[in-house]
Amino acid sequence: MMQVSLSVGSLLEHAENFFPKKQVISQTHDKLHRLNYSEIGQRTRRLMSALHEIGIQEGDRVGTLAWNHHRHLEIYFAAPGMGAVLHTINIRLSPEDIIYIINHAEDKILFVDEDILPLIEHIYTHLTTVEAFVVMTDKAELPNSTIQPLYSYEELLSTGDPAYEFTKDIDENQPAGMCYTSATTGKPKGVVYSHRAIVLHSFALGLADTAAISESDVAMPVVPQFHVNAWGLPFASTWFGTTQVMPGPRFTPKRLAEFIERFHVTITAGVPTIWLGLLKELEQGSYETSSLRAVLCGGSAAPLGLIKAFEEKYQIPFYHAYGATETTPLATVSRLKSYQQNLSPEDKFKERARQGILVPGLQMKVVGGEGEIEWNGKEMGELLLRGPWIANEYYKDTRSGEAFKDGWFHTGDVVTVDEEGTIKVVDRTKDLIKSGGEWISSVEIENAIMAHDAVFEASVVAMPDEKWQERPIACVVLHEGYENKIKKEDIIEFITPQFPKWWLPDDVLFFEEIPKSSVGKFLKRELREQVKARYSPQG
Amino acid sequence: MMQVSLSVGSLLEHAENFFPKKQVISQTHDKLHRLNYSEIGQRTRRLMSALHEIGIQEGDRVGTLAWNHHRHLEIYFAAPGMGAVLHTINIRLSPEDIIYIINHAEDKILFVDEDILPLIEHIYTHLTTVEAFVVMTDKAELPNSTIQPLYSYEELLSTGDPAYEFTKDIDENQPAGMCYTSATTGKPKGVVYSHRAIVLHSFALGLADTAAISESDVAMPVVPQFHVNAWGLPFASTWFGTTQVMPGPRFTPKRLAEFIERFHVTITAGVPTIWLGLLKELEQGSYETSSLRAVLCGGSAAPLGLIKAFEEKYQIPFYHAYGATETTPLATVSRLKSYQQNLSPEDKFKERARQGILVPGLQMKVVGGEGEIEWNGKEMGELLLRGPWIANEYYKDTRSGEAFKDGWFHTGDVVTVDEEGTIKVVDRTKDLIKSGGEWISSVEIENAIMAHDAVFEASVVAMPDEKWQERPIACVVLHEGYENKIKKEDIIEFITPQFPKWWLPDDVLFFEEIPKSSVGKFLKRELREQVKARYSPQG
Repeated sequence: MMQVSLSVGSLLEHAENFFPKKQVISQTHDKLHRLNYSEIGQRTRRLMSALHEIGIQEGDRVGTLAWNHHRHLEIYFAAPGMGAVLHTINIRLSPEDIIYIINHAEDKILFVDEDILPLIEHIYTHLTTVEAFVVMTDKAELPNSTIQPLYSYEELLSTGDPAYEFTKDIDENQPAGMCYTSATTGKPKGVVYSHRAIVLHSFALGLADTAAISESDVAMPVVPQFHVNAWGLPFASTWFGTTQVMPGPRFTPKRLAEFIERFHVTITAGVPTIWLGLLKELEQGSYETSSLRAVLCGGSAAPLGLIKAFEEKYQIPFYHAYGATETTPLATVSRLKSYQQNLSPEDKFKERARQGILVPGLQMKVVGGEGEIEWNGKEMGELLLRGPWIANEYYKDTRSGEAFKDGWFHTGDVVTVDEEGTIKVVDRTKDLIKSGGEWISSVEIENAIMAHDAVFEASVVAMPDEKWQERPIACVVLHEGYENKIKKEDIIEFITPQFPKWWLPDDVLFFEEIPKSSVGKFLKRELREQVKARYSPQG
Repeated sequence: MMQVSLSVGSLLEHAENFFPKKQVISQTHDKLHRLNYSEIGQRTRRLMSALHEIGIQEGDRVGTLAWNHHRHLEIYFAAPGMGAVLHTINIRLSPEDIIYIINHAEDKILFVDEDILPLIEHIYTHLTTVEAFVVMTDKAELPNSTIQPLYSYEELLSTGDPAYEFTKDIDENQPAGMCYTSATTGKPKGVVYSHRAIVLHSFALGLADTAAISESDVAMPVVPQFHVNAWGLPFASTWFGTTQVMPGPRFTPKRLAEFIERFHVTITAGVPTIWLGLLKELEQGSYETSSLRAVLCGGSAAPLGLIKAFEEKYQIPFYHAYGATETTPLATVSRLKSYQQNLSPEDKFKERARQGILVPGLQMKVVGGEGEIEWNGKEMGELLLRGPWIANEYYKDTRSGEAFKDGWFHTGDVVTVDEEGTIKVVDRTKDLIKSGGEWISSVEIENAIMAHDAVFEASVVAMPDEKWQERPIACVVLHEGYENKIKKEDIIEFITPQFPKWWLPDDVLFFEEIPKSSVGKFLKRELREQVKARYSPQG
């Protein structure tokens, strides 16, 4: 067989050849753009040509601090297409972390959205490797700025050659992209994606039993492009000729609902917080959402109530998926098997609230205290993953050894696996609660509490206990209007039938909000401090 | 990213882990078998273990002469799973070709169906490399035979270890399978498939816009397992946990129709001849076929009438695909793009009768007399293919240089490409008719004639002509009952509106059948001889 490399550039080339008329609809600060893949292709080629002119070479890191829009999509293909490395940076991190990440990755050029420019001006003097900045603006003139040299994206493009070619015969194991993930302790950790990983992952996203991305779809990635490449959707959607809708900067649930109706979005993807917000919007407004065939939800576990609300109230199919920055990210998807269609509605929802089965192409094992666990839906263990789109190290980081051992990525997620091979994330290894020598899953209790009508969010953390070592404490945010109407006892009573008595939280504390990371995950370390503060004499 | 090889064994392992209950339904000589993937997995492991015991090693060729059934499926995974090479042999070839193929591939062991054993006994003394034979029989006792050593498949399995492991960390570029393709001149030519090619091809078969093979499907490969691995369906179907229906030895259209109804087949694949046969059966019997979501048709061009009959009479979606032994084989699939749904019914059929667009992961170019042709649906050129599941040579064959040049596989197929990137095969380079310095496509005329209600099959060949160099002659097989009712003039009149006058055949000859190759393709060389014979004074 031919030795032909899997390469990111070839994905866009396929779209240029076979789907030249299909569109990318993109919201930027100032307006809504519509470009087809022929135009996106030419603009990407111009960009490669211009970057080449200003000195970007194979292997150079190309940083982006940007929202989801067509220019960001063009860099997705231009950087790896010319052998450079796309480095998407999480704009919601602290300035300190952003400085660390840019210097650690040694970004040579930074593409920045207009509204993020002030942030860059603020940290400008701390950046040790960046030689040029590009502002992505619709305006004819560059904003006033102290940053030098500062290019306008569209001006840069106008200097480029629309027939510039993607680098031929790239080594498929060469870096194509990178992304940093927050660490519980210390600085963010970098993951490098190869061309091979991105192409294989795109194949996986197109499979009938995963996301089934198709030419006939209208895909709207709500998950940010700086969050594990918007879960790979822009790569797969471009390859398969899918219409893409990019919701742009600082979108609101209202804009999402409007775009779904207006552009007949068929598939969208994001974290639970986003869908909680959209749900509120759908309840308040009147939107036509019948085009939606799939809402993909990942990043953290979706509560059963959320899934039910989408499916029962709005007939929107809702799919739970699981992955991590280290896994490109798709690792499991929850879909019913054909014979599970016979389950009762309630059992179907239970099954769908799990994280699903492994995506073809990967391997998994689950290791508990005494080696690999039984797949009986009861035993718990840490999920280990292996495969061609799973990282094998953190970029230049001594912490690699903690997560990558013996050829497996140790996810830090505690799961059960049932006879069907379906995993259910029950906790983070670090968040498991050890009470009286036994493990309690904080996530299971959280999900049970979140099924209560009055509850908007719940997070359960461990508190030190003299007698039992640790005991669970529930932290609850109520829906508007329920404040002071719901008591600790109501919550405990509601979940009592589902758990052994010793699993029940010792206390339920009510919060206005639960601290979350920049990608919408509960920050349990911070929450634990807040809980401690409430119990302390000064609290 | 991890360096994890793509390997054929891992496909079955995935099915064992995540689809252990799903079934393979298999017709053998004596009975219908039902085995699930857990059993298929254990039997495959037993087979690897037993083969290891009798001396099969990494790299050894394992030949099969067999129909489509579960034992053949087990060898599909056992041979590559232990690092050996699956060599499927076309049982319909001449004994001379079969001897050549086995000796050329240096098969070390041969797996043979019971009814094919007499053929092997006949050629036994000519086989120079085979050290052992295995007969695949349901019977407790071995048939009497002069062949030595002769094993019984089930007895061999009973000695094996059901927990034997697939070879770890196989090099993905290592041979996993091979298949010989008939040559127009000389002996058959061998193509070697790597693990990488088979796994990537399986990904391609699972894509929503190609065959979309899913766990919820019931797949019946009618195309033989010795014909380019039944187009890869057994590999992909196993990986994705699809129910498989193997129609077994010497199946009839009746058995196919019955199996579709009985097992609720959702997807099936085969050559046009098979579907012409099935169509006749559907017309005669009364079958429930509503489960079918896709009939895949390849191997040679499907006439428009065939597609229409399936879709209009039986509401069975019919998909045209294109490939070759050298392309693993899937290269293009014909599916309407979303915006083509607005075409008129007639235009939709025309579009669907083309071979479709390139499958993601491959590259194509079309070269005419003056370099790459315009994609305007008119210019003709030879289709060239490139990609990770395209062959780069024939196995130990000096003829490789004719087809593999400058990194491209020269298919020998003449195509047009329209603005959508849709290819239409208009001829073989060797079958194009050159009249008065211009090209005439024999295939286009054939398709036009086959749209006539009275016509069962048509083939058009070139005859030498003093004035014009070559002129087309049409060879037609009529449906039963039309003999002597249809004349040359009727056929010519029927197609006249569609072609320039100089394209119209100089003569129409009626035949009882048109000579075909072992895989159902017109043998034009032989047909040309028959036409010549008719025109000769002795004819």
